[in-house]
Amino acid sequence: MESVQADVLKPNCPSRMVVERLGERWTLLVLIALRSGPVRFTALREKIGVVTPKVLTQTLRGLEHDGLVLRTIYAEIPPRVEYELTDLGESLMGPVDGLRVWSESNGHQIVAAREASDRRA
Amino acid sequence: MESVQADVLKPNCPSRMVVERLGERWTLLVLIALRSGPVRFTALREKIGVVTPKVLTQTLRGLEHDGLVLRTIYAEIPPRVEYELTDLGESLMGPVDGLRVWSESNGHQIVAAREASDRRA
Repeated sequence: MESVQADVLKPNCPSRMVVERLGERWTLLVLIALRSGPVRFTALREKIGVVTPKVLTQTLRGLEHDGLVLRTIYAEIPPRVEYELTDLGESLMGPVDGLRVWSESNGHQIVAAREASDRRA
Repeated sequence: MESVQADVLKPNCPSRMVVERLGERWTLLVLIALRSGPVRFTALREKIGVVTPKVLTQTLRGLEHDGLVLRTIYAEIPPRVEYELTDLGESLMGPVDGLRVWSESNGHQIVAAREASDRRA
């Protein structure tokens, strides 16, 4: 398994599945919203904004399936459900945070590029 | 404009548009495939694999619109069209490459997590 070099550009490489997961509509935002610690579904949804409960649930299920997010159910009345990053998920936050910082630093340049492009069209 | 702190978790922040662009199905893979220099459409498609021409074109149009990718048409017969990263696109490659390296290093752990999850189901 280790004898083959991992390469995200190879369609059957396991690493490609990771990039494809990150390329789902809400995955990056959910990871970013989870970086400050365990959070309940409703609070997570408020943090992200505009995502529907159904789609947020699907996104969380995918991240759980990948071992990046842990869902914990506390036997209270009513039951409390919290989501948090696993150790593997935490280890992904360095790169994800790099994207967040770049996006927050360069968002205005992207807006300017779009406006310039629309003027030429 | 600079008086408001950029925050990808705010739905109307320009930085959010960047994260949403990165969260489109093929965007990360196209950026990764472009990092080694200018490339023609057909060669780009071969590098990525399995993407349809229509979807690859849509992805490239989005990245051009954002000022991250430059399309150059050379007046040859037949015309040659090449795609490459702009300076802004190049500046995004540090963070994107961080994700690529993480994915290539941890792909096997994601596969293992999925298999463990499927056994429990």
